Amino acid sequence: MRMTDLIAVKRDGGRLSTEQIDFMVQGYTRGEIPDYQMSAMCMAILLRGMDEQETLDMTMSMVRSGETIDLSPIQGLKADKHSTGGVGDKTSLVLCPMVAACGLKIAKMSGRGLGHTGGTIDKLESFPGFSVDISEEQFFENVNKIGIAIIGQTADLVPADKKIYALRDVTGTVPSIPLIVSSIMSKKLASGSDIIVLDVKCGSGAFMKTVDQARELAQGLTRIGRLAKRRCAAVITDMDQPLGHAVGNALEVKEAISVLRGEKEGDLLELCLTLGGLMLTEAGMAADLEAARALLLESIRSGAALRKLAEMVEAQGGDSRPVFQPELLPKAPVQLPVYAGRSGTVSRIQAEKVGLVSMHLGGGRVDKESPIDLSVGVVLEKKVGERVQAGDCLAVLHAPSQAKAEEAAELLKACFEFSDGEVEKPSFIKEIVR
Amino acid sequence: MRMTDLIAVKRDGGRLSTEQIDFMVQGYTRGEIPDYQMSAMCMAILLRGMDEQETLDMTMSMVRSGETIDLSPIQGLKADKHSTGGVGDKTSLVLCPMVAACGLKIAKMSGRGLGHTGGTIDKLESFPGFSVDISEEQFFENVNKIGIAIIGQTADLVPADKKIYALRDVTGTVPSIPLIVSSIMSKKLASGSDIIVLDVKCGSGAFMKTVDQARELAQGLTRIGRLAKRRCAAVITDMDQPLGHAVGNALEVKEAISVLRGEKEGDLLELCLTLGGLMLTEAGMAADLEAARALLLESIRSGAALRKLAEMVEAQGGDSRPVFQPELLPKAPVQLPVYAGRSGTVSRIQAEKVGLVSMHLGGGRVDKESPIDLSVGVVLEKKVGERVQAGDCLAVLHAPSQAKAEEAAELLKACFEFSDGEVEKPSFIKEIVR
Repeated sequence: MRMTDLIAVKRDGGRLSTEQIDFMVQGYTRGEIPDYQMSAMCMAILLRGMDEQETLDMTMSMVRSGETIDLSPIQGLKADKHSTGGVGDKTSLVLCPMVAACGLKIAKMSGRGLGHTGGTIDKLESFPGFSVDISEEQFFENVNKIGIAIIGQTADLVPADKKIYALRDVTGTVPSIPLIVSSIMSKKLASGSDIIVLDVKCGSGAFMKTVDQARELAQGLTRIGRLAKRRCAAVITDMDQPLGHAVGNALEVKEAISVLRGEKEGDLLELCLTLGGLMLTEAGMAADLEAARALLLESIRSGAALRKLAEMVEAQGGDSRPVFQPELLPKAPVQLPVYAGRSGTVSRIQAEKVGLVSMHLGGGRVDKESPIDLSVGVVLEKKVGERVQAGDCLAVLHAPSQAKAEEAAELLKACFEFSDGEVEKPSFIKEIVR
Repeated sequence: MRMTDLIAVKRDGGRLSTEQIDFMVQGYTRGEIPDYQMSAMCMAILLRGMDEQETLDMTMSMVRSGETIDLSPIQGLKADKHSTGGVGDKTSLVLCPMVAACGLKIAKMSGRGLGHTGGTIDKLESFPGFSVDISEEQFFENVNKIGIAIIGQTADLVPADKKIYALRDVTGTVPSIPLIVSSIMSKKLASGSDIIVLDVKCGSGAFMKTVDQARELAQGLTRIGRLAKRRCAAVITDMDQPLGHAVGNALEVKEAISVLRGEKEGDLLELCLTLGGLMLTEAGMAADLEAARALLLESIRSGAALRKLAEMVEAQGGDSRPVFQPELLPKAPVQLPVYAGRSGTVSRIQAEKVGLVSMHLGGGRVDKESPIDLSVGVVLEKKVGERVQAGDCLAVLHAPSQAKAEEAAELLKACFEFSDGEVEKPSFIKEIVR
């Protein structure tokens, strides 16, 4: 088998066999197929497509390229969640404790990642002492005992994805649905959960600009998951503005806590009720989304979800007091309100740009080694559809210094767009795909 | 400017500006753009296409990537010819002396190349002492004096093409008309001739399988040539069998001489009359192809074309006696006739495979350093459309040993296909594109 022949097959619109795809994935992972051939193949796949069988073959071959996690020492069904990436996305911090409080197991493996804020692990490190460097045995034991644990990536999961994604990133071959599907699903499958729910973002701030594109991706993801014998569902959500109000590590933890305390409604709560509802119905723990919603809301009302977060933090060596006293969370030295320069209705808040403001304040990682400032970020006071008068507070910046705050204020103002007329509040949950 | 952005433009079906194309070509040639980005771009170009302006920009940028030849020390118009590659293609050996005998200058730069036989330079080395290692001054002087000279590649012409072609060859990105056009035309433009005629092969033994594909390539080539202010024309010719009868270096020289002596008609003569006719009409030295044909045939009848070949050989240090006594050309020790195993009409002679027979006998180069045996090869006795009886001679093998000849005989038999009914002789000249 020669890689040039496989490239020619795909270039001419043909389909690749299971064996051909495995030859390509394993050969590339082992360094036997050079980057320049793989990038030409990725472009051919992007422009010619892959059918469902090819996408499944690619996903499963990527899973086999490295280690996989066997979650069988944990009793019962395990659920996992993936988001295609959003600004201010603190969903896991709310969703996982809620679902665990309802009795469905969460055994989550997480990376730190690069981005506008840290990943879920970074955010949880807002609790002093909290650590994801726990052994597999400890991880399994915690999930069996309290129903929830989060561990840093220990095993060498899906090395093929690391290599292929890095190449796609620099060769213009990211926006291919089959390649996105194989990248996301190979990691989720290798992580071992039985139930996988997916949050596919859609809109100007997301990778999928339209609901049609997002639906195609969501269907691709759930179909491959089901073909790989997992229970799968997806929700398509709006990303024309950041999710919730806070963007920044400790600020997002604080917002998550206020949702778990039942103090905050809105898009973030809705998303967690929907994703959690999909998890519980897929697990057979609720007859339908309405019944699941009631269970999830009860976990908030009763305080069970909030206590579950505290239990998890303590079980992993953390100080759980901030769960009940959020004022103990890391706090930035400077708070600077940003005021509206004009009256009108907020028509758009550019999520990507708000993320860059958080980055600018030190809340995100530029490269793998960058330190991260957990205390800084942005808290939006107004969202799309809200009326403001000139001089109203649009947002509060949490900054390491007055100078940084003032720089960030200019950047933040440019994120807001206004309209003179009415602006309908965007429907946040666009569609459910099962 | 970032290469990933340029890849995305082409991937999404957009067009690249002159500056973007130059950034890409010069950056890649200098090693600043990595192979994996260029290969993804080549695949995007292959699948999305390039318009005429982009193709021109790419061609001209490639020309600028290295040195160019200034033929202005030679008086008058200079003509050059390119073939997309065929088996048994000794066209230059016949065409160039004929055209020079008619008074149009030929200042040809040639490489040795890899292939089933050597290149034009290797073939000409069948004349003892002949050398293409002449100075530029000598080259110009010879063309001014006798109207014809051939020189080995001295300058570093179009390094971009060497690099891009090598990459395309291993990434499935060869069959792209804009990329083929820029590759061929950049070299022809850098070589400095005023008139460029192109022989585009078409058929099962060629890269372009159909006349439609060949026409698209021919039109692409001639248009870019004209936009670059050269006079251009092309002919589409059949490649369902080798050109002429001989495949092998000295054997092809012998066949060329017999055409120049007026002893041989057929496809090779027709091709030279057509290509030569296009050269002479483009030069304004003949009113139309018919008038040009008369001039070219007269150059044969009068012996002027044959003498021109002898003059060139002598001017470049060679012994011209074999021009008049072809029996002095290198001769293989063994001649083995290959007989037909059945009766029928020859329906096809697989050109590529006949080329491999020549290669097997030692007539071609496997790599740049391989020695080449000028004496060996194949002479076909029957061509497509001819009736044969079982036991008739199909071809004569010229081999270094009886053993090699017998091996080759088996291979050669497999090149012939027969039909029981009538087979029409294929029309050799398919179309003229101006």
